[in-house]
Amino acid sequence: MTITTVGLDADDTLWHNETIFRLTQDRFRDLMADVAPADALSAKLAEIERKNLTLYGYGAKGFTLSMIETAMAVTANQAPGPVIAEILAAGREMLAHPVEPLPGVADALDDLAADYRLVLITKGDLLHQEQKLAASGLGELFAAVEIVSEKDAATYQRVFARDGTGPAEAAMAGNSLRSDVLPALEAGCYAAHIPYPITWAHEMADAPVGHPRFAELASISDLPAWVRSLR
Amino acid sequence: MTITTVGLDADDTLWHNETIFRLTQDRFRDLMADVAPADALSAKLAEIERKNLTLYGYGAKGFTLSMIETAMAVTANQAPGPVIAEILAAGREMLAHPVEPLPGVADALDDLAADYRLVLITKGDLLHQEQKLAASGLGELFAAVEIVSEKDAATYQRVFARDGTGPAEAAMAGNSLRSDVLPALEAGCYAAHIPYPITWAHEMADAPVGHPRFAELASISDLPAWVRSLR
Repeated sequence: MTITTVGLDADDTLWHNETIFRLTQDRFRDLMADVAPADALSAKLAEIERKNLTLYGYGAKGFTLSMIETAMAVTANQAPGPVIAEILAAGREMLAHPVEPLPGVADALDDLAADYRLVLITKGDLLHQEQKLAASGLGELFAAVEIVSEKDAATYQRVFARDGTGPAEAAMAGNSLRSDVLPALEAGCYAAHIPYPITWAHEMADAPVGHPRFAELASISDLPAWVRSLR
Repeated sequence: MTITTVGLDADDTLWHNETIFRLTQDRFRDLMADVAPADALSAKLAEIERKNLTLYGYGAKGFTLSMIETAMAVTANQAPGPVIAEILAAGREMLAHPVEPLPGVADALDDLAADYRLVLITKGDLLHQEQKLAASGLGELFAAVEIVSEKDAATYQRVFARDGTGPAEAAMAGNSLRSDVLPALEAGCYAAHIPYPITWAHEMADAPVGHPRFAELASISDLPAWVRSLR
C-alpha cells in the first residue's frame, strides 16, 4: 500500500483560529460586563451556539449571530445598542483577521508537496476559508481544496475518491480528534493528530490509542517523515 | 461537438430564493417602521449589503448581519432590543424555510438526467445550500454539487473540467444573466437564461442577444429540448 494523497485540516492546523474565537469571546464578555456575569454569559453562548449549529454551521458569521442572540437572551432583549454594534464589529474583524501560517507549516507542506497530492479539507464559511487560504500564501501547494459542511467518514471517502486514489491510500492530518482523526480512520485512511494548544469543546474526543493507522505527532514538522514511513 | 454536461443554478432557478429575501426585507421594514422611513431603510440596507459582500459573501447569514447593522446605522445605535431579536428570528426562518422545486423543475431534470451529467452550481451559505438541496428531493439527480463563493469564467472552466468533459461540451442554465449566463459564455459553454419574476439588483445585467451559444428560455420546461438541439 502506497500513500498518494495527504489531507490537511486548515483552522488550528495550518493557522490560528480557535485563539481568535477565544479573543473575540473575551471581548464579548468585556462588552457585556455591566449587564451579565461572565460565567453565565459563556454558558448561555455555548448553549446558543450548540442550538444554532445545525442551522448556521461552522464559522465566524454564525458565531457573530449567536453572540448577538446571547446578548439579547441574557438581557431580556434590553442589550444596549452600542454593544450590538461592537459585536458586529468584532465579527467583521474575525473575518478580516490576518492569516499567518503556524510555525513549521510552510516547510512541511513544501516537503510533502514534492511527493504527494495535498488536499485541504476544512469546515467553516466558504468565502472566509477561501480568503484565508489565499492570504496564507499556501494555496499553490494544494492540488484540491474541499470546504465541507461536516467532516464524517462519508466526507473523507468522497473527497479522497475524487481528489486522490481512495481513502486507503490517503493520510489525513489535523488538530481535531473528533473531526480530522476519528472519521478519517473510520473511512479507511491513515490519520495523524497534531494538537493545537486549545480545542473548542465541540471538537473534543478521546485519542484512538493503539489504532494501527493512527499517530500522535508533536508538530506538523514531524508529518512528512511519518507519511513516508507508511507502506 | 456534443453536450455531455448540464450545469444548473439553484436559487430562483430550481426553487424560490429572492422572494424569501424580499419578504424578509418587508418584515424588516415593518419592524423598523416606527424608527426609520421605509425608503431610507432600504437604501441603507442595500449600501451595507454591498459594503459587506466581500467579507460576508452571499447568503442568509450575511444578510441577517447586514440587517442588524442597518438597524443600528439608521438609529445611531438605538435600535430597540426586541427589533434585533426579531431580525435574528427572521434570519433563522430564512434558513429553515421549506424548499419546494419551482413548477416544471422535477420533470425537466428527470428528462435531462437520462442523457446528461447534471451539475448543481450555486453561491450562498455552504450548509444552507446543501440543506436546501436535500430538502428539495432533487439531490439524487445531480452527479456533482459545487457550492462556490463567486461565479466567474474561471469557476465554470474549473467546474466543467472537473465534473464534466470541459466547458465546450457543457451547457449552463440559470436565472441570473450576470452570474449564470455571461461568465459561462466567456468560459466557452453554452448558456440559457431562464428568468425568475424578480432579480436582486446585484445580479442585473444585459442579455447577450445574438450570441451564438446563448438562448433565452421562457421556462425550465424548454431546457431539455434546447440542450438536445445543440450539436
